Amino acid sequence: MALAQTEKQKTLIRADITNVMTDQAEAWNKGDIDGFMQGYWKSENLVFVSKEVTRGWQQTLDRYKKSYNTREKMGTLTFSDLEIDVFSRDAAKVLGSWQVKTTAGSSGGKFTLIFKRFKDGWKVVHDHTS
Amino acid sequence: MALAQTEKQKTLIRADITNVMTDQAEAWNKGDIDGFMQGYWKSENLVFVSKEVTRGWQQTLDRYKKSYNTREKMGTLTFSDLEIDVFSRDAAKVLGSWQVKTTAGSSGGKFTLIFKRFKDGWKVVHDHTS
Repeated sequence: MALAQTEKQKTLIRADITNVMTDQAEAWNKGDIDGFMQGYWKSENLVFVSKEVTRGWQQTLDRYKKSYNTREKMGTLTFSDLEIDVFSRDAAKVLGSWQVKTTAGSSGGKFTLIFKRFKDGWKVVHDHTS
Repeated sequence: MALAQTEKQKTLIRADITNVMTDQAEAWNKGDIDGFMQGYWKSENLVFVSKEVTRGWQQTLDRYKKSYNTREKMGTLTFSDLEIDVFSRDAAKVLGSWQVKTTAGSSGGKFTLIFKRFKDGWKVVHDHTS
């Protein structure tokens, strides 16, 4: 099929996406929410879904800054159990788990991310977190 | 770009996917969970995510039957606010809202669906509901 990616191409894409997420967690764990947000598509069309839908990169940043308004609340973020499904050379899905550990305890859950490839690399265009 | 779908192709794909979801809601509203499940990929690799991850068509069916074990609990299902993003001729994402109204009240939330195209049509391969 013309659109199919080879396994080698998919492996490279999975590595690129994993790197983006590793960079995100590293930024978070330095208390750098703006750095963390570099993994998201800087567009008004970015979609973040939890109980409600938040639209836009700036709005998503504001939401994170409101929920995690101290370094202590940010704690330590870990992504795990990543399963990356490559749809095409430009689109992929990631299923995974997130955990934030703080001195007060830990919280966590599951996410489905849609990544798309842009000139400056792979970015999350849609995040459904529960 | 070679992989791009024309707007006409995307419109046809959106119509196909909307039809699948309309059929699902109609089956549900007849009390037919098995019919509703025809919209899902009949595979052990089907993924259903809420707080936890359920894997497999049969396991997803069992989960629905456990949660909605009477006709009254099933109530009336409505899908709305569908936004369909076509990735390729074989893959698309749907963001939308669900609501179940029963005599006891209503519940609802958001979903992110990944649809893929199979020989027998478009099927949900990944459902993240919150």
